[in-house]
Amino acid sequence: MRDDNCIFCKIANGDIPSATLYEDEEFRVILDLGPASKGHALILPKEHYPNLYELPDELAGKAILLAKKMAVKMTKALDCDGFNVVQNNGESAGQTVFHFHMHLIPRYKNDQAGFGWNVGELSEADREDILSRVRAVN
Amino acid sequence: MRDDNCIFCKIANGDIPSATLYEDEEFRVILDLGPASKGHALILPKEHYPNLYELPDELAGKAILLAKKMAVKMTKALDCDGFNVVQNNGESAGQTVFHFHMHLIPRYKNDQAGFGWNVGELSEADREDILSRVRAVN
Repeated sequence: MRDDNCIFCKIANGDIPSATLYEDEEFRVILDLGPASKGHALILPKEHYPNLYELPDELAGKAILLAKKMAVKMTKALDCDGFNVVQNNGESAGQTVFHFHMHLIPRYKNDQAGFGWNVGELSEADREDILSRVRAVN
Repeated sequence: MRDDNCIFCKIANGDIPSATLYEDEEFRVILDLGPASKGHALILPKEHYPNLYELPDELAGKAILLAKKMAVKMTKALDCDGFNVVQNNGESAGQTVFHFHMHLIPRYKNDQAGFGWNVGELSEADREDILSRVRAVN
């Protein structure tokens, strides 16, 4: 199923041209127009699912295996040293297009990707609170 | 197979205690000791594989489905608004423990996670160079 108002539906299905690294029946892998590093790519399913929660299990499994396959291929092609595989869900998480996608960010020694997050501390109170809350959910 | 010198092998297999949110025969999900946000968790396979490239396909598929399952569960438990799912490979990518793991970072409106990366531009020269290099790899 496609969403006619979704730009990633149009790109994934070839209605809008893109720099395509790979395509099969279910996915298209394109270069990100705002790359964190050289080769930053996006894995897009052709069908419209807003996020991981709504993505069918079968496509989720295929997406991570495609990430693995592309990472091996791009390592040979680009001589990168590593990869961040990132998948954001929800506006609070920085998701800006609400069509499931997975970022593949090739990394190079001393690159300027600036990828990361703030490292906090896990207090005993937080630990116990989180454990009891999560364990209480069926 | 386990690596006797790997701290995540010891944690995943219960030789070192951890704040465990979930456990099955193949995985353990624990709270990260340096959380970006409340509930930041790590999905650890019990067997030792250094990264996504070496993780068997079956476990990779199970890992992303476990991320989905935990995200749904933690959303109910913690009332978060979204999730970053992150998996780093290689020192250049910020990987510090060389036992495959997937970060699950719950996100909240106006949290202090500081998660992100630098957004660059995709030049035409880079685009053509990357496309030709990747397409040349079998």
